[in-house]
This record gives sequence, structure tokens and C-alpha cells, in this order.
Amino acid sequence: MNRPSSASIDACKRMLAAALGPSKLIDDPDLFSPYGQDWSFSTPSMPDLVVRAEGVADVQAVFRAATAHGVPVTPRGLGTGKSGGSVPVQGGIVLSMERMTRMKDVSKTDMIAVAEPGIITETFMRNVEAEGLFYPPDPNSLKICSLGGNVACNAGGPRALKYGVTKNYVLAVEVVIPTGEVLRFGKGTLKHVTGYDLTALMVGSEGTLGVITEITTRLIPNPAAVTTALVSFPDLGRAGSAITAIFAAGVIPRTLEFLDDYALGALREKTPGRFPENAGALLILETDGTSVERSMEDLERAALVCTEHGAIDVLVAQDAAQREKMWEPRRMLSVTLSETAPRKISEDIVVPRSRIPAMLDGAKRIGEKHKLGLATYGHAGDGNLHVNILFDEDAQERADQAVHEIMSLTVSLGGTISGEHGVGLTKREFLSLEHSEPLIALQKNVKKVFDPAGILNPGKIFPSRGVRE
Amino acid sequence: MNRPSSASIDACKRMLAAALGPSKLIDDPDLFSPYGQDWSFSTPSMPDLVVRAEGVADVQAVFRAATAHGVPVTPRGLGTGKSGGSVPVQGGIVLSMERMTRMKDVSKTDMIAVAEPGIITETFMRNVEAEGLFYPPDPNSLKICSLGGNVACNAGGPRALKYGVTKNYVLAVEVVIPTGEVLRFGKGTLKHVTGYDLTALMVGSEGTLGVITEITTRLIPNPAAVTTALVSFPDLGRAGSAITAIFAAGVIPRTLEFLDDYALGALREKTPGRFPENAGALLILETDGTSVERSMEDLERAALVCTEHGAIDVLVAQDAAQREKMWEPRRMLSVTLSETAPRKISEDIVVPRSRIPAMLDGAKRIGEKHKLGLATYGHAGDGNLHVNILFDEDAQERADQAVHEIMSLTVSLGGTISGEHGVGLTKREFLSLEHSEPLIALQKNVKKVFDPAGILNPGKIFPSRGVRE
Repeated sequence: MNRPSSASIDACKRMLAAALGPSKLIDDPDLFSPYGQDWSFSTPSMPDLVVRAEGVADVQAVFRAATAHGVPVTPRGLGTGKSGGSVPVQGGIVLSMERMTRMKDVSKTDMIAVAEPGIITETFMRNVEAEGLFYPPDPNSLKICSLGGNVACNAGGPRALKYGVTKNYVLAVEVVIPTGEVLRFGKGTLKHVTGYDLTALMVGSEGTLGVITEITTRLIPNPAAVTTALVSFPDLGRAGSAITAIFAAGVIPRTLEFLDDYALGALREKTPGRFPENAGALLILETDGTSVERSMEDLERAALVCTEHGAIDVLVAQDAAQREKMWEPRRMLSVTLSETAPRKISEDIVVPRSRIPAMLDGAKRIGEKHKLGLATYGHAGDGNLHVNILFDEDAQERADQAVHEIMSLTVSLGGTISGEHGVGLTKREFLSLEHSEPLIALQKNVKKVFDPAGILNPGKIFPSRGVRE
Repeated sequence: MNRPSSASIDACKRMLAAALGPSKLIDDPDLFSPYGQDWSFSTPSMPDLVVRAEGVADVQAVFRAATAHGVPVTPRGLGTGKSGGSVPVQGGIVLSMERMTRMKDVSKTDMIAVAEPGIITETFMRNVEAEGLFYPPDPNSLKICSLGGNVACNAGGPRALKYGVTKNYVLAVEVVIPTGEVLRFGKGTLKHVTGYDLTALMVGSEGTLGVITEITTRLIPNPAAVTTALVSFPDLGRAGSAITAIFAAGVIPRTLEFLDDYALGALREKTPGRFPENAGALLILETDGTSVERSMEDLERAALVCTEHGAIDVLVAQDAAQREKMWEPRRMLSVTLSETAPRKISEDIVVPRSRIPAMLDGAKRIGEKHKLGLATYGHAGDGNLHVNILFDEDAQERADQAVHEIMSLTVSLGGTISGEHGVGLTKREFLSLEHSEPLIALQKNVKKVFDPAGILNPGKIFPSRGVRE
């Protein structure tokens, strides 16, 4: 990948300085570091300039200057992505949306909200909850990620099981495409079939089609009651069979999170005595409803199914503090696992629910074969598993091989290589495992419609060449 | 719009006869009539040839012949569309999917189903229900429409209020694009963010981007209990305020259908004594849940809200037969209204919930101004109103003017010109009311990526020129 020439960069910088003034630009390489990386394991790559847009006109100015001088533009929310999607691999301009944080509207009657993309997801949620409404998508990073980033990656989270992912809530977006045009896709109405669903096309497009400057979401009534239980199983197999049985019993929990024995071991080291000694797998089961009675009734039904499938222990949270305590180890798991080995690769695969046991089993065998630590946890209810490989510096090659085998296994089980993190940089060489050549070609042609000059977030999603062998 | 030359048609026919044999072709103009129209008020237009595809290879053969001879292809499900989307306005080939009706899979564990596009929606639903599962989208035509047509138009129905529209259920599609390539968009997994969401782009694209040959949908557990009530109000205003209050009370009904005074009058003529004399508006309120108690509790809560907002009468169905009887007038309403006047135009607008009273009021005034019958009914819970204009033959011009004014009013209230019928032929000249020129241009360019030769369903969605004035 070629970075632009320094002459192009300089000309572009001069044009932007004149258009935007100094307060929106970061031109000091000492300050670039936070804008050259995200939360993935991809190699950082520094921009040549950072623009912190404050409105639509700023985004247009960036595209104008970038197009004039052939400089790439990499849009960025708050940089918590897990696949390198916001890393400026070809340098150029990082277009940060961190200053566009306005909550523009929450309508209790229409149950919709309108916000700028830089707003922190949790802030957006709180604003909505203040009106008695609920915005369900809850990526683990919700306290520090941006709503715009969530839309770009179609973020999920534990509650996606019952409530769906980001795309199920985005009704409309305002977008600036690389040609500089400001377009509105979708409508702030609950139904809409006028023309192509370009809103859906934008969601999950990882900042490669346009820069979102406003988001309209639908909302639902805030469920009055939530109940939570921590369920221990002696082994993965029994936990796996309980997962499918809960749905067969007609209960759709709000969350059904899974932690395997390796993850449990890491947590035990940190907080001894917290989990039953004989537990080999955990489920965090949460239900909600319009009343405590209903929520508890569903929880009891699901818990009974777990017991019938061999659960050792069902611990029900008695209050909000206990619930928080149950969730805490799950929330910290990514960090806790990082502490068990010098290196960690975290994957984000999805398989059909019936293939969860085969996937857990296969992943474990791949780990053993390559002598790597392997922890699986995640949103088991919808088949979305975060497979983590833990290893020493000298095992990078084996780890890479294991990742490839895990991806291949996933696809062979009818699954997908990304459930909620996106392809970005870290998974683009695997895309061909899942997408045929003509399908990739079609998508590249769709991108060209939005970005004819190829300046927007280059080097993402699509493989640089064929499948990595 | 130009039809292809008879030489092109003849050459194309010969090529298809050789490739497919006679049993899949209809070449007798006497048999064309059912393939030249749909359920909209658009003028019929006859094809030059009908192909009834029996598999992917047949669809590819059609595109091969059509491309070779520059003949347009208009795909068709079962022809129940309400916007002329399947009418072959430029002649050429009608590609009917009526023979591709296989139910390929229903997985109870994975809660997904796979079917061919020609399957009747109700048949698909019954197959799914036999496994204890539920496919919610319920267009009024479900007994006679095809699943593929539902996907092409992103069909809704009363239950969309609680459960969402077709796009919320389609996980993956197999598609033949006009270049002849067979592509699979999406995955049969509950989460998926690998590449662009071309599945979502296909849903609602009205057969202009490709021909769907297989559909994978997610399913949900079948709610065990359903309860239904018929609620009468003295006037539209009070019904409108009850609608928003029900949601504010935290209840999301399964359906919340609305019928105005004109619609009620037409029904009264047909079945005297069925509705309270002093009723000026009706709601059909339906709730569901995992138990009768829960469903009834929600119904009672919503009914109480209605009473507080001035409902005259709340009639609760005591059994399935009574429920059927409550729904019957609503199901027959389109036909019943047709009988009240020589001509009827049925529109399908959506406004934000808070603007329903303004829309009802405005539509009524437009009807009065042009001396036209005006009935509004539909899925009021999500703001999707079917505004019907009823008139004599000599009032066509006034009716057209009224339609234009209704569309303009809708857009000025933040609404959309189509909620579930699509744009097709009948609304394409109104698209510019809602979409800017650059947005229309962008969509046309997206179409070109799929259909570079412009042979697939020409003359649909996009305006032939500027806004109709």
C-alpha cells in the first residue's frame, strides 16, 4: 500500500488549514499516536493529518481537499474497533468524529432519537432512558465507543440475542459521500420502502462508503424489570445442550452469555472462590419484561431447563448490586485473558446455534494441536462466539495458522467470520473463505459508486489478493 | 418506453425454446393476460413471452437470452403487488417464479427456514408453525402472495408493529444477477457483518437488482396465546390519541389496526348492526404472549388506556371464531371499499406516530376539497396508513391531483410515500418528493452495478423525468 507523496500531503494540509482554520486540525506527529490504532491486534499506522470535524461542512471540506490531492481519508469514531477498520493504513487524513456529539432529539411519542455520530453510546442510551425508552445494542465497549462507530460496524452485544443488532434500530442516516454530496438515506418512520435500503447498506460498511454525520434510530419501551442468574455446568457439552433447549422451551432470554473452562480458569485465578470448583462452563442468563413477575417467571423457566440439562448451580441476583457483580467478570474477561499470556488474538465468529458444540470442540482441538491457549466466550444464544488465542511471542506463526483453521472450520459449519466486529484490516485476507470472487467484485463495484476516486478508507474489508494460504 | 423489436423478440424466443424446452414457456398471447398486470391500478402491459423458471439454471438462461438480444426481463412472484412492480411495461420476458415453491428446510434448533421464492406466504408460515415456530410478516394477501414477492417489496402487515417487516427476518438470499452470476448474499446465522449487507439491499429492491432464487429467514418461537379486542371511538381524534398513549403505557400490541368513519360506513352498509351506531373510528387491538394470562393482561392494560381516551366500547374476542369475525371486516375492507365507488386508488403512506392526527385531518380536507370519497385505514400503530380515494370515472383528474397532494402532505409531515407496497410503477413519479436528485442518481448507479445492460425490470422505482407537477 502506497502512502501519498509529501507534496500531495502538504498541498492538502494547506487547503484544509485555509478552509477549516487551525482549531480542527492536528498536524503534530507527536499527537498522532491515538489516531493510528484501534483495539485490534493490527499494527498501528500513523496518519499525516487529523481533522476533528464539527459539522457536515467540515466533512465536505475534507473530501474536497482529499480528492484534489489524491489523499486517503480514514473516518474514525472513538477508536474502539476490534478489526483495524479505523487504522489509516495508507496514511493521509484521519477524519475524527469525536467532536460531533450532539443529541439532537428524543421523541417519546414517535419513539425515535436523532444524534450525531461521535456521541458515546452509553450517553445516547442514558438520554433515551430518561424518556422511559430503550436503545438495546450494548457492545462491551459502550462506555467509551461512539454511536457512529457502532453503526459503521453494525455493533451487537449480549442483548442482541433478544433485541437484535444496531442495524435493527437505525432508521435513517445523513451521509457525506466522497464526492462531497450530502445525502439522507432512510426516513424517521417505522416503515419505509421507498427506493433501495441504502441505510442498511451503510450499517456495517465500516466507513468505506461514506461518512455518517447524523443517525436516526427507533427505540422501544424500556422493560421495567430485569432478572439475572449465573448458571454453572460441569462441562461445555451440557452448557451447549442447555442453550438450544432454552429456546425450544419458548423463552428468549435478554442475554445468554457463555464462558468456557479456560475463561473460567483465568477468572478463578483473579477472584478465587467465586465460582463452583467443579464448574467447567458458565452461562449468564438474563431475562426482562414489563413486570418483575414476568421476568422472574421466564428466568425460572430457563433455569429449570438448565437444571434438567445438568447445571450444577443456579445463582439468582437478588438486587442490582448482585447483578452488577455477576456481570463484572464477563465485562473484564477480555482484559483478564490478556493477562494470562503475552499475546492474544480475539475472534468473533458466528455459527448456527446447532453447530455450537461442534465449533467449541473443533476450536479446542485446533488449540491443542498448535499448543496454544484457547478460550471461548461470548453471545452463545445467537451462536456468536469470541474465540481467543493466547500465546507467547515466539508462537505467532502457530497462532496465525490456528486463526486460519478456526475461520475455515467456522465457514465449513455454515458460519461467518465476523458477527459484530467487522472485517476491517485484520480479517480481510479471510473474506474469500466466505465470499466468492464475483461477490467480492460486486461489492467493490458498489464501493466505486460511492467512492469513484477510491480515497475513502482504502485497504479495508476486501482482500489484497486471493485467500491467504 | 420502447418495446424491443420483433426480430429481437423472435431471436430471444428461439434461444430460450432451445435452452429450456416448451414446457417452461408461454408463448400464446391469449394466455398473457395474468402476467401483464398486478393488483395495483396501473394499466396492464403484456409481455412477449412468459418463462416459468424451475431452477437457478432457468433464470440464468433467461438472462443469457435477454442480454444477447436486448430484451427486458420482468420478474414476478404471484402478481399481488400493489404498485405495478411486476407489470412488464416494456414487454419482453416475464420471468415467473410460480413454479419454484419448494420448502427446503425448517430447523427448529437454529430457528431458521429456507425456501424457494414462489412458495405461498401462508404455506411457508404453516410449515414453520408445524415446528412450533413463527414467521411474523403478514401482508393482507398472505393466502395468495409469494414469499419472494414479499422479499422484493419488503412486505409488512398488521403484525409488523410488534415484530417488524420482512427485512427483519431475511438472513440470506441466493440471487441471479442480470450478468448471469449466481451469488449468495448473507448467511444463515443470526449475526453477520462480513462485507456489505447486500441481503438488505435486495429486500425491497422490487426485482430491479436481481432475481431471488432462494430465501433464508430467521424465525421466532410461536407465541402461545393471542387476544383480540375491537375498540370503538366516537371520532378519529380520540382514536389517534389512544394510539400514542398505548405505547406510552409500555404496551407493544401485536397489531393496532385503525379504520376511519368512511371505512366504517362502508362496512356498516354491508353488515348492519355490527358496529356501535355512535362509533366514528375503530381500533383492532391484538396482543400476544407466552401465556393467555400475559396476553390478556397486556390487552386489558391497552384497553384501559383506550377507555381513558374516550373509547365507547371494548369488545374482547372469547375464542378463535370470534377473533376471526373481528378481523374479517378489516381483511375484506379493500374489496368492500371498491364496491362503494367505480374507482379506487389505495395509497400506502407512513408518518411518524405523532403526526397521525395531522395526516388524518389533512387527508380528509384534501378529499373534501376535491369532492372525493376518502377512507383511511391501516397499521396505525406504526404510522402506516392506507389512504383510499374513491371516485367516479369522470373524477380521475381530481383524484390524481388529490394523490399528489396527499403525497406532498405526507413528506411535509416527515413521512414516506410507501411503507410496504413499494414504489414500482405507480409511485415513481412521486419519488422526487422524497429523494433528492443526487440520491436518485446514486441509486441508479447502484442498479447499474447489478444490471449494466439495463435489462432487469426497466421503468420501475425511478422517475421517468422530474417531479410530476
